[in-house]
Amino acid sequence: MLAEAEITNLSKFQIAAQLKELQDTICSKLESCDGKAKFQEEIWTRSSGGSGRTRVIQQGNVLEKGGVNFSEVFGKATPSMLKALDIHDSGNLEFFATGVSIVLHPSSPMVPISHANFRYFELSNGMSWIGGGIDLTPIYVVEEQARWFHQQLKMICNKYDLTYYPTFKKWADDYFFIEHRQETRGVGGAFFDHLTPTTDKPLSELVDFLLDLGNQFAPIYTQIMDWNRNLPFTDAQKNWQLIRRGRYAEFNLVYDRGTKFGFESQGRTESILMSLPPQANWEYNHIPEPGSEEAVTLSLLKKNIEW
Amino acid sequence: MLAEAEITNLSKFQIAAQLKELQDTICSKLESCDGKAKFQEEIWTRSSGGSGRTRVIQQGNVLEKGGVNFSEVFGKATPSMLKALDIHDSGNLEFFATGVSIVLHPSSPMVPISHANFRYFELSNGMSWIGGGIDLTPIYVVEEQARWFHQQLKMICNKYDLTYYPTFKKWADDYFFIEHRQETRGVGGAFFDHLTPTTDKPLSELVDFLLDLGNQFAPIYTQIMDWNRNLPFTDAQKNWQLIRRGRYAEFNLVYDRGTKFGFESQGRTESILMSLPPQANWEYNHIPEPGSEEAVTLSLLKKNIEW
Repeated sequence: MLAEAEITNLSKFQIAAQLKELQDTICSKLESCDGKAKFQEEIWTRSSGGSGRTRVIQQGNVLEKGGVNFSEVFGKATPSMLKALDIHDSGNLEFFATGVSIVLHPSSPMVPISHANFRYFELSNGMSWIGGGIDLTPIYVVEEQARWFHQQLKMICNKYDLTYYPTFKKWADDYFFIEHRQETRGVGGAFFDHLTPTTDKPLSELVDFLLDLGNQFAPIYTQIMDWNRNLPFTDAQKNWQLIRRGRYAEFNLVYDRGTKFGFESQGRTESILMSLPPQANWEYNHIPEPGSEEAVTLSLLKKNIEW
Repeated sequence: MLAEAEITNLSKFQIAAQLKELQDTICSKLESCDGKAKFQEEIWTRSSGGSGRTRVIQQGNVLEKGGVNFSEVFGKATPSMLKALDIHDSGNLEFFATGVSIVLHPSSPMVPISHANFRYFELSNGMSWIGGGIDLTPIYVVEEQARWFHQQLKMICNKYDLTYYPTFKKWADDYFFIEHRQETRGVGGAFFDHLTPTTDKPLSELVDFLLDLGNQFAPIYTQIMDWNRNLPFTDAQKNWQLIRRGRYAEFNLVYDRGTKFGFESQGRTESILMSLPPQANWEYNHIPEPGSEEAVTLSLLKKNIEW
């Protein structure tokens, strides 16, 4: 029993170490693509267990504000946390959660906002799972780029399981949905949660998939940055970006489970809310002109588009 | 039975009519104080029952964006709505809700944000109650003005019940609290909910109190506008306002029960989110200089200050 516990402990710390390395890789690729700003790091500790490395990039050539955060937190699972995780177990459970979470807000409205996270979660009752994904929020949807983005995700998923992409694509559509606006946040991507090991797919294979996806994030997103970073834009396009960023803030504060879990687990507020845009505007009843490129984008912020 | 039902119906429609009149009074006083902008009205209907008059003011001399909304909605109470109201009744209930809700965002950081609402709620099982209140969110807390504001509320409350002000002041402290920031949203005020009729206090007296408070809103807030509207301010003070507005958006989207109830009852999103500021900023880990006026304000955004 002791030996088994040791193996389990080793394994969760190994996964945490791999995710920490992933954070390094992603930060370095993003800095090199941005060409100006550098990530500023803050190490924090959580009084009830765990720590993290918050890395924030600001006022770059492309990236106005962004974060690539690593955390590794553990402790007693509170009832509200278990409820947020949809777990109904009245036992005295300990949890261990580690992950990298990323939100990038470019200054130009022509460059999409990007979000990704790669998480591993373990409970002391033996349950463990991975979760995460990558999704894209263009201010102006360029259909060809949205298709390319989805194809990249599909190729990674298909290496592990042919059911992954269709399942996770639908999951992203359903998850990144702003119910009160009846809009998707962006063009979706691949999102999954509670992916548990099975006899067919042991934990090691799930973690391989998680890290593969994580390692593909920067190559995919920097390609999209490079396609759009030098495009000119107007004040009206900038204004549309600020309104769409308002929607982004609405999603994150009203619906996002990561934000809720962060608050529930008494995470570090500034690290959790690093996801919020540098500036967001709310204009009363803003409705794009019929036929405008803003109206075209809105028409593409729907579920179930086969990219 | 029919006669009784008619009296009840008459009564809820009378209350709605009085609240509609309150909306007129408040809009007219605010327009006259602002001196430039006029409220734009939109009438909406709710497919599953009810209607409203959204009134929005924009780009005034003092008020950058604000709304004074009246609504009167009814229909089948959904399980999620009853849950949001903390009512555990499995019966097939109909609800009727009417109210005026107000949020005013001034352009100057020297003028506090103001919020108020005055609501009447009735269920088909015979339950009825009032709720609402007035609270103030200064960007810079001026202690003398905060004291004056609380005194006005106390005087109104004391006319009806000496327990009202201390109870409702504490209620505001507890309600307008941003848990994840460990800050109050502003200097509080008076807030109450589920105030039900008793043999001592019939519904008519509760409604008198609600309307009295409602009628005092504009005189109180326009006085605060006038004290501060002509004060000069710096870019740094404007920036602090944008950060505080970010907190305001956080409160409204994460905690506000009115927003949640609005979403749950499929209210009109643009009317519900009229409360959000015209612009809000999120700067990573913004901490005011020790001793600065921003730090002083932060130190006063606490519960249980006896103004």
